[in-house]
Amino acid sequence: MTPGSKDVAPEIPVTLETIQAAAERIGPYIERTPVLSSRSLNEPAGAEVFLKCENFQKVGAFKFRGAMNAVLSLDEAARKAGVVTHSSGNHGQALARAGQLAGVPVCVIMPRTAPLVKLRATEAFGARVVLCEPTLAAREAAVAAEIDKHGYELVHPFDDWRVIAGQGTAALELLEQAGPLDVVVVPIGGGGLASGTAIAVKALSPSTKVIGVEPAAADDAARSIEAGRILPSGDPKTMADGLRTSLAPKTFTVLSRFVDQVVSATEAETLASMRLVWERFKIIIEPSCAVPVAPIHHRKIVVAGKRVGIVITGGNVDLDAIFDALRTKFVDPAPEASNG
Amino acid sequence: MTPGSKDVAPEIPVTLETIQAAAERIGPYIERTPVLSSRSLNEPAGAEVFLKCENFQKVGAFKFRGAMNAVLSLDEAARKAGVVTHSSGNHGQALARAGQLAGVPVCVIMPRTAPLVKLRATEAFGARVVLCEPTLAAREAAVAAEIDKHGYELVHPFDDWRVIAGQGTAALELLEQAGPLDVVVVPIGGGGLASGTAIAVKALSPSTKVIGVEPAAADDAARSIEAGRILPSGDPKTMADGLRTSLAPKTFTVLSRFVDQVVSATEAETLASMRLVWERFKIIIEPSCAVPVAPIHHRKIVVAGKRVGIVITGGNVDLDAIFDALRTKFVDPAPEASNG
Repeated sequence: MTPGSKDVAPEIPVTLETIQAAAERIGPYIERTPVLSSRSLNEPAGAEVFLKCENFQKVGAFKFRGAMNAVLSLDEAARKAGVVTHSSGNHGQALARAGQLAGVPVCVIMPRTAPLVKLRATEAFGARVVLCEPTLAAREAAVAAEIDKHGYELVHPFDDWRVIAGQGTAALELLEQAGPLDVVVVPIGGGGLASGTAIAVKALSPSTKVIGVEPAAADDAARSIEAGRILPSGDPKTMADGLRTSLAPKTFTVLSRFVDQVVSATEAETLASMRLVWERFKIIIEPSCAVPVAPIHHRKIVVAGKRVGIVITGGNVDLDAIFDALRTKFVDPAPEASNG
Repeated sequence: MTPGSKDVAPEIPVTLETIQAAAERIGPYIERTPVLSSRSLNEPAGAEVFLKCENFQKVGAFKFRGAMNAVLSLDEAARKAGVVTHSSGNHGQALARAGQLAGVPVCVIMPRTAPLVKLRATEAFGARVVLCEPTLAAREAAVAAEIDKHGYELVHPFDDWRVIAGQGTAALELLEQAGPLDVVVVPIGGGGLASGTAIAVKALSPSTKVIGVEPAAADDAARSIEAGRILPSGDPKTMADGLRTSLAPKTFTVLSRFVDQVVSATEAETLASMRLVWERFKIIIEPSCAVPVAPIHHRKIVVAGKRVGIVITGGNVDLDAIFDALRTKFVDPAPEASNG
């Protein structure tokens, strides 16, 4: 799987040492999230499965690690000028919060179609939000315009070595907390988390197998690694909204070299695994996190007798529909003459 | 608040020592659940708030502590004969699991109207389930008949000193994990958890205020303590299904003596607080757990500058409606020709 296309960045500057330095740098700002296990997942798989719960991370997702590392890695001039990114989701909020903590101005480009609640949450962390049309061209133009005008530095959501190094710090903690692991399973969207995880795990424990999982409808990583060049997924339809993105040059290079296997999960498998985790672990995970649980839960990969770690990426679920239903049922029904 | 009615049990045999002995006894079987905090709850309240997360307890609720203590406190003859209880909820499952772990036969009386999923879960822990009509008379008759026939010992869901001592062990852990607390807030249904908590907290830290919270629609504890006798709530309408029960003689006696204040939460406050915890703590809590969060979240009790502990009782939410909606939205819509 030696990549040969022009898409490919030739060097991988992120190493175990880079990731350890990132861990040191962001240590005062991040949560050391817990590792949970449950026999409802262990027993059917015949394995010991450990969930590294980044849904408990600041801003509700591992993205805060990469964003914080990027912001703390800026030179003095860049810290003053500030940073810009494009994101309608967790990375935008993570960068906003990182900038707020480090005193660095943050600008987030969001599509006009993004939910108002995400816009407000990003602004609540002190970021300036700039809206653009929901197309790639409009987004890139908006980023370029903001850089021109304000001298911002771009912090890409995943195709950025500082971000990749920051995301790798979750795997360092997972191995410390769970002990030796035979397999580490990680979701693949743009590939930032998978890249950082794979570099860290393969350096610390070369015999540990690193398995990436992506939605069946957004299986660009498997296809790209197989083909030796980036084959993006178009406009994939999957509830795992954090995994709709395709690989980029840096993450493609890393995953081609360090990931042992890429498997996929159907929407039905993902939903069933999300329910298992909500119901039995009592934690809120977003659909993207259920994707790496699915192959274990549905025995698509054999892990019997193994010690398996899964990075649970975040818990930012849109709860509006759920709580609207509960409100209609319990709070605003036709009033009864009760409690007499 | 010295109780004087005939409802009142004159002696309270549960002490700090009893609760510490229970902690020792059940230690090998229970989870030492984590304590979480979040600035989304701290900042509006101007306080440090610690959630003792018994939603991560075995069987998904603190009830396992009391049930396990009761089962391990049986004498040899009773261990052989087995135990019986009546419960359509967490206590039934908790006793079933405790009996399974200790090798003690368990019979659970459930109303015919209980959800099938609860019946199956209770049976999955090896208990024998006996259905009865959904009336108090039918339930008591069924319990008496089972005791007659099999020589079972009754383990009441809350009006049982062994159960009360077991529930108090969560407060011991909370004080160890969070450090000194100015206020401990606990929900009140039948009063088992509140009783164990109040005894433990007042013995270890007499200056700590113990505040009980109940649904406004099931405010029998406030009314009963005020009146000096048990005034049950009838058939209260509240989403906090774990708190519909009224006090019983033992819990009434303990709460009258050891609880400093009882406040109530409306349904709307409870729902808003449940959402806050799901969304910001990323944990699944059941409506009954949101009840003690509500007065802090809605500033009905003033805790500015204080260190506050809240016992989060369980995470057993019926997720059917939620996941049916997600399935309709994501898995079974009209298929599109995607992924081309």
